[in-house]
Amino acid sequence: MRDKVAVVGVGCTKFGERYESSYEDLICDAAFAAYDDAGIDPDDIEAAYLGTYMPGPGGGKAAVSLADALKLYGRPITRVENYCATGTDAFRNACMTVASGVHDVVLVVGAETLRAGGARARPRCGHPLWARATRAPGLFALAANRYMHEFGMGRETLAKVAVKNHYNGARNEKAHLRTEITEEQVLNAPIIASPFGLFDCCPTTDGAAAAIVCRADLATRFRPQPVYVKAAALAVETGRPFFDPTFDYLGFRSTQKAAAAAYAMAGITPGDVSFAEVHDCFTWTEVSNIEDLGFCRKGEGPNLVAEGRTALGGDMPINTSGGLKSFGHPIGASGVRMIYECVTQLRGEAGERQVKSPQLGLAHNVGGPGSVACVVVLGN
Amino acid sequence: MRDKVAVVGVGCTKFGERYESSYEDLICDAAFAAYDDAGIDPDDIEAAYLGTYMPGPGGGKAAVSLADALKLYGRPITRVENYCATGTDAFRNACMTVASGVHDVVLVVGAETLRAGGARARPRCGHPLWARATRAPGLFALAANRYMHEFGMGRETLAKVAVKNHYNGARNEKAHLRTEITEEQVLNAPIIASPFGLFDCCPTTDGAAAAIVCRADLATRFRPQPVYVKAAALAVETGRPFFDPTFDYLGFRSTQKAAAAAYAMAGITPGDVSFAEVHDCFTWTEVSNIEDLGFCRKGEGPNLVAEGRTALGGDMPINTSGGLKSFGHPIGASGVRMIYECVTQLRGEAGERQVKSPQLGLAHNVGGPGSVACVVVLGN
Repeated sequence: MRDKVAVVGVGCTKFGERYESSYEDLICDAAFAAYDDAGIDPDDIEAAYLGTYMPGPGGGKAAVSLADALKLYGRPITRVENYCATGTDAFRNACMTVASGVHDVVLVVGAETLRAGGARARPRCGHPLWARATRAPGLFALAANRYMHEFGMGRETLAKVAVKNHYNGARNEKAHLRTEITEEQVLNAPIIASPFGLFDCCPTTDGAAAAIVCRADLATRFRPQPVYVKAAALAVETGRPFFDPTFDYLGFRSTQKAAAAAYAMAGITPGDVSFAEVHDCFTWTEVSNIEDLGFCRKGEGPNLVAEGRTALGGDMPINTSGGLKSFGHPIGASGVRMIYECVTQLRGEAGERQVKSPQLGLAHNVGGPGSVACVVVLGN
Repeated sequence: MRDKVAVVGVGCTKFGERYESSYEDLICDAAFAAYDDAGIDPDDIEAAYLGTYMPGPGGGKAAVSLADALKLYGRPITRVENYCATGTDAFRNACMTVASGVHDVVLVVGAETLRAGGARARPRCGHPLWARATRAPGLFALAANRYMHEFGMGRETLAKVAVKNHYNGARNEKAHLRTEITEEQVLNAPIIASPFGLFDCCPTTDGAAAAIVCRADLATRFRPQPVYVKAAALAVETGRPFFDPTFDYLGFRSTQKAAAAAYAMAGITPGDVSFAEVHDCFTWTEVSNIEDLGFCRKGEGPNLVAEGRTALGGDMPINTSGGLKSFGHPIGASGVRMIYECVTQLRGEAGERQVKSPQLGLAHNVGGPGSVACVVVLGN
């Protein structure tokens, strides 16, 4: 797929508590922003992918929702669901559709309404106590505790991740949480699931993001300097990693394998990546992810954080957008929102968050928790 | 995509009330049957698609379910959902993955447990009376009534569809309902939603089906005479066709557009198709589908049925498998099960249901109701 597919337009709604907007409103806002960005007539969209994790209470929020929201009729639209990797996997499938030669111009929309009606309507299973213990904060906390024990990392390092991502997000008008915070605030916040306090956890968010991909050799019709898709790779592991006796609780094999596959497809090494949007659902996840993605060795992530190397001015800026932590995490939208940030950075349009002369940007989702990971590499 | 992709293995579980089997059991049985059929080592599967409409009560039945059921780890697995066209759309995406050159050998599994725990756990929305009025039987009945009024078709014609499909299904050991029935039984059965009696409606069913697709030029490694994918096309229309003032209640634009796209991709006309598996969720839907697919003009479907031309010995055999009506309809599995029947027929392995020297077989799903349709054309 390398260099066969280009991104010619991206769009993103304001992320946050969007009670005033319907799911379809958010899809429209993101898609029309991408249409404008590409300078494309909506009629030229040949096919679409919708990334949404949670269906509505009646089973809605499906391909037809996108068709009706955009009046995009008579064309193929597929809904993709893959836990928290839903957005990047929808993008991956759109890229393969273009690479297959079946369709030349394909829209991807990731959308989710977690505040405005979605999350509370989600059906739950099993014993209520068990269900609570196995929600995301509790599960990721198990791994974070093991990691802290193994590598001697303290909560201060996790706090630095939160402070950095809020700093970046405060400079991003589309982010959900735009308040700068201090390490003291993070460390003194109420505990959600030890070691995670309130500021170690990403918020639940409403939002949508969109991208338009097309055949690389047609891309200059839309933009003089399109961004190219170097790789998109997905890896699925067991759905119950925390019950897997071979799981070391220090990182996720799904990310390691998806990253290896993406680097091989792109013909690069991790050192070639200029910046990355990684899945910081919790502060520890960012530390672990940068190791699993190969930006440093296992156990060295805390050093990168402490030395400021992952900050905006560092040599490996991570989550320049603010990340899930500050930009918010509307599940199916997050991966496409990462593509939006990568494209914005690669074009040099990120304003005061701009990374210097980036060549390659990476977007990474992990979900499950830890069961599923998708890695996308974009470049000029 | 035409002739770039081949089907080298298919598998299907017994459809029916499978209370003794878990969702994962069904996935295993279908996939391992396909592995055996292709003579493939499971390790050679590079990627997979899972077609499942209804998630479990905890949001399960996702890509990781397939990974765990088959121990298929470290590879991309995407769950596709597209109402009742979920199965064929999963197959379509698998074909595009192969055509893109990203993966050479891809597994598709469609699976659903509607009896064994799924359907009753499904969340419902809105007012209970309204919800009942807008279930599938009531909606399709609105169109059937309009159609009967417009073209003077009686319930006897619908009954002939049910009798034919039960006749075919009685000759299919994997079918859910294997009892031959008479027109009198159909006409005297309790009414579900007029004009549909009990035997005009497909059952709710548990089951799974699988297919292995691979690059056409590699296919003879697995089978001396593989079946080739001539086309796979999807069309999405409004999610509320019954509120659409331009809807004539006589057929579905989604099917008409998906069929036109598929015929163009395959470079054929409807007259070139030797037999078809069409989406007979209700008896009327089969009549309407064969018109929407272009096998005859609008309003002529009842003649084809009355003249026996859609029966096993006719010139356009429809639903040789027994169709949704007799084989059953585990939503995400149905489309892949149709691929299974088409491949079995094209290989000449359908036993007493065998169509004479078929060249091209067509599989068709419609869902929504009427909002989404997918058409796949397979050939030797």
